Amino acid sequence: MKAEIITIGDEILNGQIVDTNSAWIAQQLAPLHISIAQISSISDSAEAITLALQQAEQRADVIIVTGGLGPTKDDVTKSTIANYFNTRLVRDPQVLAHVQQLFDRLGYTDMPEVNKQQADVLAIAKVLFNDVGTAPGMAIEKEGKYYAFLPGVPFEMKHLIEHRVLPDLRRLQPEAYVYNAHLITVGLGESHLARQIEDIEDAMPSFVKLAYLPKLGLVRLRFTAVGADLEVLKKETDNIADAVAQRLGKHVVAREDLSFEEIIVRTFAAKNLRLATAESCTGGNISTQITAVAGASQMFQGAAVVYSNQAKVDVLGVSASTLEAHGAVSEPTVVQMADGAKAVFHSDYAIATSGIAGPGGGTPEKPVGMVCVAVAGRYETLSKTFYYKNDRAVNIQRATMAGLSMLWNLFQKEEAVKME
Amino acid sequence: MKAEIITIGDEILNGQIVDTNSAWIAQQLAPLHISIAQISSISDSAEAITLALQQAEQRADVIIVTGGLGPTKDDVTKSTIANYFNTRLVRDPQVLAHVQQLFDRLGYTDMPEVNKQQADVLAIAKVLFNDVGTAPGMAIEKEGKYYAFLPGVPFEMKHLIEHRVLPDLRRLQPEAYVYNAHLITVGLGESHLARQIEDIEDAMPSFVKLAYLPKLGLVRLRFTAVGADLEVLKKETDNIADAVAQRLGKHVVAREDLSFEEIIVRTFAAKNLRLATAESCTGGNISTQITAVAGASQMFQGAAVVYSNQAKVDVLGVSASTLEAHGAVSEPTVVQMADGAKAVFHSDYAIATSGIAGPGGGTPEKPVGMVCVAVAGRYETLSKTFYYKNDRAVNIQRATMAGLSMLWNLFQKEEAVKME
Repeated sequence: MKAEIITIGDEILNGQIVDTNSAWIAQQLAPLHISIAQISSISDSAEAITLALQQAEQRADVIIVTGGLGPTKDDVTKSTIANYFNTRLVRDPQVLAHVQQLFDRLGYTDMPEVNKQQADVLAIAKVLFNDVGTAPGMAIEKEGKYYAFLPGVPFEMKHLIEHRVLPDLRRLQPEAYVYNAHLITVGLGESHLARQIEDIEDAMPSFVKLAYLPKLGLVRLRFTAVGADLEVLKKETDNIADAVAQRLGKHVVAREDLSFEEIIVRTFAAKNLRLATAESCTGGNISTQITAVAGASQMFQGAAVVYSNQAKVDVLGVSASTLEAHGAVSEPTVVQMADGAKAVFHSDYAIATSGIAGPGGGTPEKPVGMVCVAVAGRYETLSKTFYYKNDRAVNIQRATMAGLSMLWNLFQKEEAVKME
Repeated sequence: MKAEIITIGDEILNGQIVDTNSAWIAQQLAPLHISIAQISSISDSAEAITLALQQAEQRADVIIVTGGLGPTKDDVTKSTIANYFNTRLVRDPQVLAHVQQLFDRLGYTDMPEVNKQQADVLAIAKVLFNDVGTAPGMAIEKEGKYYAFLPGVPFEMKHLIEHRVLPDLRRLQPEAYVYNAHLITVGLGESHLARQIEDIEDAMPSFVKLAYLPKLGLVRLRFTAVGADLEVLKKETDNIADAVAQRLGKHVVAREDLSFEEIIVRTFAAKNLRLATAESCTGGNISTQITAVAGASQMFQGAAVVYSNQAKVDVLGVSASTLEAHGAVSEPTVVQMADGAKAVFHSDYAIATSGIAGPGGGTPEKPVGMVCVAVAGRYETLSKTFYYKNDRAVNIQRATMAGLSMLWNLFQKEEAVKME
């Protein structure tokens, strides 16, 4: 099946916000074997909405529309789609009670009409009840097409996709089960990886598809099988994933669809290992990425962002003579930063970074984009220097990824040593 | 004028990457008084590209296409648009020499044909020379419409927009000068702000437009004037901005188009004030936001991310008895964290956060979303407790913004004290 995503609202068109909803929706539909034909952001006008629906119908079976349903918008979206589907708006009593309840909780007495209108839905629509907000979603099935209209607020949209839309979409293709298996790999490029497993991929039955999804330092492999017998799909797909995992050995770091940070948090928490960071050029970004993962507090001890030389000495115990002899951006300094963070935070591992993120601060010997990274482990501390050539934000992102990769490599090496 | 943005490539459609290019482009075009009618992400097929161009032409005067020009893509984009414009591809000698040079630098000898094809451009196009990559951009003017085809790599795209496309677009509307003035405001909601300056806005001449651009905690006002006499535009617009700035008083924090973090970095650097952070629930995110600003090293001393209680005691000198009596998530604890960070990092100001970001870790007394924030200044330390109700990522973002806002308020208060 093909789907299209339409986002309504001027905030995206004038560049105030980046549309992150659509990528998230695309990721949720992929495991159901639904691919996205087009993503469109359009303005909040009757003409634009009508045209976008007409054009999307030509290309897709599933049309997901977000935005234009909030309480501060006038009702152009709802009245436009009521016209489009040749129906009218009716006030839903269950939604009205829910909106009233949320309103009461804020301590106001009279609910204005504009808030009551939140409960208006298309007469022909199935209401997608919104537990986490006031604007309900709506689903319409017509002439073999499925339409979902959802609020644009990300966590409301996500709730409705997960709990209302995905079950609908699974029901729409009842004859076909979909089964997914994942392998997360680190340390191999996409083309190199593809060559290593070429024979396995060539021998896959036609109902199994393999997608390579590379993202900064790791490549996720998604095996998607579609067919009538779920047991067969599961067995065949898992067998193929097993064969690939065996071939790739230690490069496979997870068999679930996790981010690299999630893998690190889970693995360290399970092994009761603790992590700290000492960050200069990454400015706390490694810490931010790790602590964005729920449960990070089980393994993350803390971070010292030491921008000034004084702080490197005071907080982490870097020696003034090392700073003088080699400079803040040097392998001897990051090694001492990593060892210092391990000691200060009582951790088993520590990542340290120091570099010239740019755009200012570069010299001929130490150009913008030069980054030194160290990782202290249980048995040794390793360091490495990288030369990036990008803007500040990308340099910070790359240095973050380099730190996490070096951490993972050292962890794997030390685990192997323990096993011997 | 109206513009449309079309991005070509499966990475956006399958949700692997979020389209950040389009929002950036929209922001660049807004000051030229060019608004975006639609943003579309489409697949890398001749049919989709042709249809998207046909539909965009109906709605817009300027069509900007990114992606589909990289060296790893087959040439479907270029051959499709060559057909579309009824022209052919020719090899550009200047671009070929540039690609050859970049290739030589990598130390390879024979350049494969696929790389040479990077130098193929539409015969009727103006080449938009790409100093920072191998894929050139192309501009085509036809029947009153302007088309730009650009590589999708963000920093290459940005380079070409800034240095090649924007000058073209300015030339296309030579009779009309565009002048922009900006005011950045903190501490007033959009509707409250609008009411306060209603009379000034109503009295503006018709050639000046005012846009309210709210973003987490601040509202930027953009005055855009379009007309034939630049001096008049400048004088009138600056007068209006002056009047608004006077009305809003201390809520106006900058008269340039800056982010809140940029304003803090510039202001503190100019006044030789130093900042540090002590972060628990924000996990380094405040530090990451501040250090993302070029030049942050002039005012930012460092951050201590103290996830464990032990680290709060060891690194920041929080007293064990305070932690025991009030818990890690409490105002007494964040006050000590802020004061501790100020002392450890030798700064003038410090922000501290501690909270339950979720989804786990909540209790009836301290629910998920409860966040304590403190700001230590030159003369006093203030604290506040917030109750958010969102997912982990949003709670962290809100706590970050609360910390920066409290910092700014305390800074303004202490500056006012100094003046007395």
